[in-house]
Amino acid sequence: MTIVALLQLDHTVGDIDANVKSIENAVGIAQENGADLAVSSELAISGYPPRDLLEKHGFVRQCIEATKSIQVSIPTIVGTPIPPEAERTKPGNGAVRIIPGRPTRVVTQKQLLPTYDVFDEERYFHPDSKPGILRLLDGQNIGVTICEDAWQHAGLVPSDYSVDPIEQLSSFSIDGETLKMSLNLSSSPFHIEKQDTRAEVARCAAKTLEHPFLLCNQVGANDDLIFDGRSLIAWPDGYMIQAPAWKEGILLIDIEKRSGKFLLLNEEDVIDCEIFDGEPTIISRYTELLDAITIGVRDYCRKSGLESVVLGMSGGIDSAVSAAICVRALGSKNVIGISMPSRHSSDHSISDAEFTAEKLGMELLSMPIEEIHHSAESTLIHELEKGHSVAAENIQSRLRGMLVMGVANARGAMAIATGNKSELAMGYCTLYGDMAGGYSPLGDVWKTEVYELAKAINNEAKSSGHDEPINESTMTKPPSAELAPEQTDQDSLPPYEVLDSILQLHMEEGLDADAISGFTGLDIALISDILLRFANNEHKRWQMSPSPRVSKRAFGQGWRQPLAAKKN
Amino acid sequence: MTIVALLQLDHTVGDIDANVKSIENAVGIAQENGADLAVSSELAISGYPPRDLLEKHGFVRQCIEATKSIQVSIPTIVGTPIPPEAERTKPGNGAVRIIPGRPTRVVTQKQLLPTYDVFDEERYFHPDSKPGILRLLDGQNIGVTICEDAWQHAGLVPSDYSVDPIEQLSSFSIDGETLKMSLNLSSSPFHIEKQDTRAEVARCAAKTLEHPFLLCNQVGANDDLIFDGRSLIAWPDGYMIQAPAWKEGILLIDIEKRSGKFLLLNEEDVIDCEIFDGEPTIISRYTELLDAITIGVRDYCRKSGLESVVLGMSGGIDSAVSAAICVRALGSKNVIGISMPSRHSSDHSISDAEFTAEKLGMELLSMPIEEIHHSAESTLIHELEKGHSVAAENIQSRLRGMLVMGVANARGAMAIATGNKSELAMGYCTLYGDMAGGYSPLGDVWKTEVYELAKAINNEAKSSGHDEPINESTMTKPPSAELAPEQTDQDSLPPYEVLDSILQLHMEEGLDADAISGFTGLDIALISDILLRFANNEHKRWQMSPSPRVSKRAFGQGWRQPLAAKKN
Repeated sequence: MTIVALLQLDHTVGDIDANVKSIENAVGIAQENGADLAVSSELAISGYPPRDLLEKHGFVRQCIEATKSIQVSIPTIVGTPIPPEAERTKPGNGAVRIIPGRPTRVVTQKQLLPTYDVFDEERYFHPDSKPGILRLLDGQNIGVTICEDAWQHAGLVPSDYSVDPIEQLSSFSIDGETLKMSLNLSSSPFHIEKQDTRAEVARCAAKTLEHPFLLCNQVGANDDLIFDGRSLIAWPDGYMIQAPAWKEGILLIDIEKRSGKFLLLNEEDVIDCEIFDGEPTIISRYTELLDAITIGVRDYCRKSGLESVVLGMSGGIDSAVSAAICVRALGSKNVIGISMPSRHSSDHSISDAEFTAEKLGMELLSMPIEEIHHSAESTLIHELEKGHSVAAENIQSRLRGMLVMGVANARGAMAIATGNKSELAMGYCTLYGDMAGGYSPLGDVWKTEVYELAKAINNEAKSSGHDEPINESTMTKPPSAELAPEQTDQDSLPPYEVLDSILQLHMEEGLDADAISGFTGLDIALISDILLRFANNEHKRWQMSPSPRVSKRAFGQGWRQPLAAKKN
Repeated sequence: MTIVALLQLDHTVGDIDANVKSIENAVGIAQENGADLAVSSELAISGYPPRDLLEKHGFVRQCIEATKSIQVSIPTIVGTPIPPEAERTKPGNGAVRIIPGRPTRVVTQKQLLPTYDVFDEERYFHPDSKPGILRLLDGQNIGVTICEDAWQHAGLVPSDYSVDPIEQLSSFSIDGETLKMSLNLSSSPFHIEKQDTRAEVARCAAKTLEHPFLLCNQVGANDDLIFDGRSLIAWPDGYMIQAPAWKEGILLIDIEKRSGKFLLLNEEDVIDCEIFDGEPTIISRYTELLDAITIGVRDYCRKSGLESVVLGMSGGIDSAVSAAICVRALGSKNVIGISMPSRHSSDHSISDAEFTAEKLGMELLSMPIEEIHHSAESTLIHELEKGHSVAAENIQSRLRGMLVMGVANARGAMAIATGNKSELAMGYCTLYGDMAGGYSPLGDVWKTEVYELAKAINNEAKSSGHDEPINESTMTKPPSAELAPEQTDQDSLPPYEVLDSILQLHMEEGLDADAISGFTGLDIALISDILLRFANNEHKRWQMSPSPRVSKRAFGQGWRQPLAAKKN
């Protein structure tokens, strides 16, 4: 047993047949390339996260039957839901060994069930209480853990579990034999602060276990979760080999020689892995974000059977960056922009959108909203005369939302909502207007980061010999919703640098107004006002579309108390 | 110790000050009426469910400080979040004793943390491992449990817990003294199948414990959860006293005399409780649903600081019933209807809406959409000519959504979405069109049940001497979205009786197509088609507004896998 293959695949939630086929295909390639053992990611058969599919009649049974049917020629460990052992018990999140000529057997089930942030595993799974050991015929024994099982040991969980599966494994011995290595099947979602965290987890485990620790991670996106891959192996001395991010393929590791290579799955190509003793190379933050969101858009569309998207293009930075990302994900012929100027639109709102669309090579429709805006105002005239001014502003945004949806429905495409996280946090956006769309690429990206993404997009174009798609005017004009004469965002919001820093400390670090003021030196009244507004707009976020989760803490199902909000 | 007061109050999530004041006020009234001990509902200080507020910096600390500040003149048990005992540990869901002249002390923390359906408690709380005992100065000892703690014993949990707090209490003794009674602090949400379930739980506990078991339940609504109250006491022989549903007040029980009365909180009135040896009286299903949804609308608006609502009125059954419920919740002067006929609208769509609005005494605006519809079609003409027909149909619905939102924004009111659960399940509704609104009163009510609600509304009007608000035409015409000529729902949906029975078996009982076919005798192809369509419309429900949860199993956060849906 010297060559291990970690199957870094892009599984689809619920598509059991396709998941089985992709594993069989990859194991075949691994075996041809000399692998002795293949390892899948966590819940590879169901895809991760399976959520309520697990409660669907027969689903868990289908998963285990499909797992048992897998045809492979080398020993393979596969992640799958496991039917409960007793009545009135939940299923397990397990690893099954498939060894030619021997009966299929459950090696272990996950002990530590993360139930925080994007995770809800206590909801669906029953925890195991012992470590998993894979006994191979050649007398080698291998420890097996599943994702979170390895994280308690590194102290990288928000609140401590009562057990530590890595400690359990370290005290394990069979007839005096120690373990040769340990495996971890992961579906560990991406966020932008996480790049080197898994290396820390693997090294910490390898050091305690005194043998190599291998972690196979899913790649691709399901719903709002994104998986970067970066499968890896760590030795007790800190030496590591890591697969590339965002690529589907096989990390082939020679345990004895401490060498590895990554076989790309679709391109019949081999790429080098990163090998390091110290810190892994950290990819530039905005290159990384760009790749993450692109994968999010691409997989959301592909797995939903959608080829093309439609978005409104205002000439502003958000829609320009959204368009560029969609083109990156789906190709320029599958992205349709619509310019929808109103009487409040500036001249450059049209020309800047045209510039970006032309450079991206995408279609741009022109649909001025003046006539329909006038009709809508006439219909609502008595209400608008005496009502809040926001009513009149929102009409334009909702008419645009209606037009974008009209084109999307006519073409069988999906509408893209172009709003960013700063706007959504403040409610500086219109329900059923600019919030309309099946997916929000920038919904977890602060406004200040949108500008950095724009630069990364321009840099990428330039370095590959193309014109920059986002022009100077789009980059530098004052942000404006253009829903009232001479309006800019800063009429009703603080500068985005200030706003984003306050919101980030509140959302991601959990700080209250006093603590944020102490940390930033900003005025407490300003901070309190922002936090109140953030809380009071929960009700809008309740209805926002899914968005690729890239930040340390995204808007989530937990962020929902319109009632509490009003009082705090 | 003979008189116990169960404080059946309507707490607001996050409004700590108001929750403290309402407890102090209620305990004062209880004491004036002879109570020796007062008991609140679960998490009365934070309100239930506090969700992510628990992760907000300082929130749990504020709750416990507020609890310690409570001024009462009789011993009182109060539900509140409890700060964690150790670092890197979650808070507890606890009960604190407040006894004049003695230190405030945590009596117990919840052991069984429900994490299924609408519950997510493993996410937020650390479980306790021992039962709670309240020791009073007169030498009496009282068992204390929190909500779910009592449900394992009755076997009424979806999957078994490893401990049973009622069994723990039953084996408890202090210096040979047994417990005089046991308490349960609950925030047990309503659903339509649950009316007599809590009685079963309490009786089962009382029988095992061989002493009276008292359960105090929250009343009112927070977000999408509704609480019916119905606080109760059961004796070991099955004798029970139960407080009324939907009323805020104090259930005052004389333990020795086995008698009780309910003091209404706001009306200075006393009403009789139900006393029964056998089964409790089950309120008629649709009277109960009507009350539940009315409380949902009323509390959602009141707690969000909203006085009035706006809704589109098509002359159809859904908008008529929604309007009647809103009038019931908020009063006729706070409900604004809009009639928005298009070229596809029938004559009766206007006259039926006028009839209902007039009988309900509410304002009805008229805003024909022909002109704006024409403008929108002109703008989209090239797309509509070659595109899917659904694009043209949806425009009308979205224009109406825009008008409803326009009136709501102008008046500072909330838009009401009038769609029902059958439509939402099938995606037979328009995103940003008829789905637009801050709250969906009928979002968890099957279409067939909407008709029953209409009858209950008419019966209520008749029995109080008023005209029936929903006329024969609205009740009997074929349901139609009226988005195309001569269109009816049954052009693209099976009859609602069939549809609802299939969806209910799938969603609430977890049956697959084969099982549903076996149970109903319906054609398997029809069933499979419906289940596929149900799954393929996850993405729409992702963006639906909150709706009062009244069914055994509502659409929930778990029902979200647009990707899986496409494949299953």
